[in-house]
Amino acid sequence: IIQEIAQSIQNTDGVDLLDTDCSPSTNRTVYTFVGSPDDVIEGALNAARTAYKHIDMTKHKGEHPRIGALDVCPFIPVQGVEMEECIYCARKFGEKLAAELNVPVFLYGFAAQHEHRKTVSQIRVGEYEGINEKITKPEWKPDYGPAEFISRWGATICGARKFLISYNVNVLGTKEKHDRNLVHLLHCIQSIVPQDFPSCIAPPPYSTSGTRESLPLLVSSHWGGGQSVRPGCLKNCQGIGWWLDEANLAQVSLNLTDHDATPIHTVYEEVCKHAQDLRIPVTGSQIVGLVPLRAMLQTAEYYIKKENLFILEEDQKVHLAVNRLGLNSLGHFNPKEKIIEYRLPDQRVGPLAKKTVQEFITAVAARTPAPGGGSVAAAVAAMGSALGAMVGQMTYGKRQWEMYDAHMRKLIPVLHNTMKELITLIDSDTTAFNDYMAAMKLPKNTPEEIVIRETAMEAGLKKAIEVPMSLARHVNKVWEATKELATLSNIGTKSDLQVGVKCLETGLLGAYWNVTINMEGVKDEIYKQKVLEEVEHHRRVAETGCREVLKILQDRQ
Amino acid sequence: IIQEIAQSIQNTDGVDLLDTDCSPSTNRTVYTFVGSPDDVIEGALNAARTAYKHIDMTKHKGEHPRIGALDVCPFIPVQGVEMEECIYCARKFGEKLAAELNVPVFLYGFAAQHEHRKTVSQIRVGEYEGINEKITKPEWKPDYGPAEFISRWGATICGARKFLISYNVNVLGTKEKHDRNLVHLLHCIQSIVPQDFPSCIAPPPYSTSGTRESLPLLVSSHWGGGQSVRPGCLKNCQGIGWWLDEANLAQVSLNLTDHDATPIHTVYEEVCKHAQDLRIPVTGSQIVGLVPLRAMLQTAEYYIKKENLFILEEDQKVHLAVNRLGLNSLGHFNPKEKIIEYRLPDQRVGPLAKKTVQEFITAVAARTPAPGGGSVAAAVAAMGSALGAMVGQMTYGKRQWEMYDAHMRKLIPVLHNTMKELITLIDSDTTAFNDYMAAMKLPKNTPEEIVIRETAMEAGLKKAIEVPMSLARHVNKVWEATKELATLSNIGTKSDLQVGVKCLETGLLGAYWNVTINMEGVKDEIYKQKVLEEVEHHRRVAETGCREVLKILQDRQ
Repeated sequence: IIQEIAQSIQNTDGVDLLDTDCSPSTNRTVYTFVGSPDDVIEGALNAARTAYKHIDMTKHKGEHPRIGALDVCPFIPVQGVEMEECIYCARKFGEKLAAELNVPVFLYGFAAQHEHRKTVSQIRVGEYEGINEKITKPEWKPDYGPAEFISRWGATICGARKFLISYNVNVLGTKEKHDRNLVHLLHCIQSIVPQDFPSCIAPPPYSTSGTRESLPLLVSSHWGGGQSVRPGCLKNCQGIGWWLDEANLAQVSLNLTDHDATPIHTVYEEVCKHAQDLRIPVTGSQIVGLVPLRAMLQTAEYYIKKENLFILEEDQKVHLAVNRLGLNSLGHFNPKEKIIEYRLPDQRVGPLAKKTVQEFITAVAARTPAPGGGSVAAAVAAMGSALGAMVGQMTYGKRQWEMYDAHMRKLIPVLHNTMKELITLIDSDTTAFNDYMAAMKLPKNTPEEIVIRETAMEAGLKKAIEVPMSLARHVNKVWEATKELATLSNIGTKSDLQVGVKCLETGLLGAYWNVTINMEGVKDEIYKQKVLEEVEHHRRVAETGCREVLKILQDRQ
Repeated sequence: IIQEIAQSIQNTDGVDLLDTDCSPSTNRTVYTFVGSPDDVIEGALNAARTAYKHIDMTKHKGEHPRIGALDVCPFIPVQGVEMEECIYCARKFGEKLAAELNVPVFLYGFAAQHEHRKTVSQIRVGEYEGINEKITKPEWKPDYGPAEFISRWGATICGARKFLISYNVNVLGTKEKHDRNLVHLLHCIQSIVPQDFPSCIAPPPYSTSGTRESLPLLVSSHWGGGQSVRPGCLKNCQGIGWWLDEANLAQVSLNLTDHDATPIHTVYEEVCKHAQDLRIPVTGSQIVGLVPLRAMLQTAEYYIKKENLFILEEDQKVHLAVNRLGLNSLGHFNPKEKIIEYRLPDQRVGPLAKKTVQEFITAVAARTPAPGGGSVAAAVAAMGSALGAMVGQMTYGKRQWEMYDAHMRKLIPVLHNTMKELITLIDSDTTAFNDYMAAMKLPKNTPEEIVIRETAMEAGLKKAIEVPMSLARHVNKVWEATKELATLSNIGTKSDLQVGVKCLETGLLGAYWNVTINMEGVKDEIYKQKVLEEVEHHRRVAETGCREVLKILQDRQ
């Protein structure tokens, strides 16, 4: 049953089953889970194994278009996982699935290897019943598995795609459907909701939930019989329409299969445009299930640009997006629960940066190489950027320096962003030599092994060197901003900017020494020369920049 | 009743009543409470007011020596409160008590104004019954209040003293008392237990408890009939002896009234010496109630020196003291509960130093003057010292640098201690201008007020300047140690020491700039010249020191 498949996914190590969406009317169940790349693949394989045992497509039927027992298995990036890694997962899964179960597997989406297999709809043409005649054609040879019709299974479509967002737009229409409304809705949407059997190869969790009617949070409940309209018009989205009795309004519920091409705000604005043509007011919208932070920020940036606002904080950007889309119109939108990245552990800030100042300093003093000079250099540089940002803040909005507000709005983001990047580099020093240490454990019994080992150690050492190099590059970007701050800023913050600039120099020098001492182990003379020239350049830029800022401040008072 | 007095103390704001010790046999009750200076004074006054209403000394009697309704009211420093402040509390309490109740009050202890009033015993001569004839003599004129005998009250002795410690030494003697044992015990102790009615003026709590026999934590209990011996010999301590049936041993229970003159270990060692003369083994000891951290550390330092140990951590020092005194012999000694400073909130580390690295950095970037460059300078310098300490640690104990272990044991404490001091200075910058800001709020309506205000502002500004000056002085103390580290340390920590030294220089420069900019507001030319010369000296020492260390490290490899 559905529960057995869900159980097989849960029993996979490193995988967290987020949602199981049953659609009795379409005979389609969507399993959404997250994990690391290899774990997600294994989880999807376990689900497939269980499905192979229990499902016989010759005896199965459903309302929804389908092509096999495991119709679609998409891998979706979540929490910073790259699309490339999802492609890897999709292809690995497809290959293993075909090898283990001997079933035909087609790739789609970003993992597609053919132009005519970019969408599920393209591959689904003919559905399960048409596999027998289609699969023998050269253009429909499976990417993996046998080019024959397995009646028990059918075929499987796997690939990589962006996060699917279930998005509803509230329309203050009537309960009675007008043909003109249907036509417009169908034309704008003109798609139905495809239910995927997704997985994710990203280390962070991947969560998704199916489409459903507006449900009352009630145990002993029953939903109303809304009208389901599935027209299509908008690119990269499928939608339906029905009447929501609880709210005395109509809703257009649609799934955004590719929110990068068609963002939430694009859909919302289009719906609003067509609604005003029908003299129908749009009164907000609703996101069912989880939504990726990126989608929310895209919407925020759109409205920031449209309304010409000045906002720095991420939470305020999210708040703006929630307000502009009217996401609180049918229930409170809690970002901490609705945005998937906000429910997961934050891995953007390392453990060292999470220690208290006291703990960090005492950890530095401990008898361990790390945290050491590298981490301290990053921390010091971050403090320098922070002081610069403070100087800008103390100048902006003040009456005496009101005429410089425009300049401050340009300078403050530079310092602010650099500060945040340098904070992440505090932990980078502790992980910099991981590859190098691993290479040292390689076998060295034979001349061939010695060559391999030394090559790996060389690569690892180069990777370690790139950490302080990154620190240097970030610090080097703020000197123009600090020099302008020194000229225009609030004179009452002179000493703060002086300390800040010196902190920046100290951080840069720390990176310099780190690069220099590690470079002794590098045998690549070309690489060594290039890097040493660059880091030497960074050193001179920092020293020059620091000296010029201090001179400006000295002359100014 | 006793409860009414206790209630009057509890109803005083800012005061926490820690213990109420009734001694039916001596007709003496000890109330121990803690709070801020003014709150403790008020609490003691409330207790005195209640006692005045309910107690009539003409109808009161007791076994214990007494001089009045409120016999003794000592103010004891707890958790960093200075003796000077306790003296202030004692004198203020005495003055107010005399003024309000019109009763004679004598000062004793550290608050005594006469040589013959240093101890309670000196003042108690003649007790309550002898007040009438003694108080009219010139040497016994009250420090406060009327020089007459108030029959209803008697007289009150208040003052300041160190923490009283109830200390028991376990002797594996017999239940039967030998005359030789009695003689020795009497000579070594030769005091009885005085029951005080104490108070404390310290901001942290002051807790004390009376002396009593080893009680089983049992609701339906009764104590054994031990033998009470009250001889005296040891300075600054009073003691008794009895038999502890529960433990099948004898105990010498004594109160250390002045643990600075006669520490715990001194008492323990003396008892052990006399016991071995009687062929009786001493099997540990016991502290009843709370004990100040200072007393524990004194004992630890004694045994560290005696046994030539190397210990840095405070908790390990406490552990050593507990072990050597055998404080676990009759019940587990939990430092977190037994040491009063460990039960109170730790106020030695400021709020800024308790922030996470991330929080601190972002707070720096906020639109507030503090935390600013001053706090950053302290933090950076602390990190520098920490790196130095790490270098020392990474050299000490390693086989290759074994011959330098002796040097490392001298160098590491220098860096380690400086690190801890600099951490406390992180928060000092935020409070540096408190006096100055307060002075700016003074009235300036008249020429006299203007002078007063400007004088106060000058004083406050000088106080603010002393904060970065202190930072500079601390940093300046580590250059000798760092230069020696650069010569002898583990070569593998070269870059860490380079960063550390640069951090120290950056911190020092931050202090320099802070001093320089604030000095502009100082009008005292003599002070200005002296301070500027000193801070300039610190700047040159730091730059020279940093440069020399870097040169040593450069030449070394």
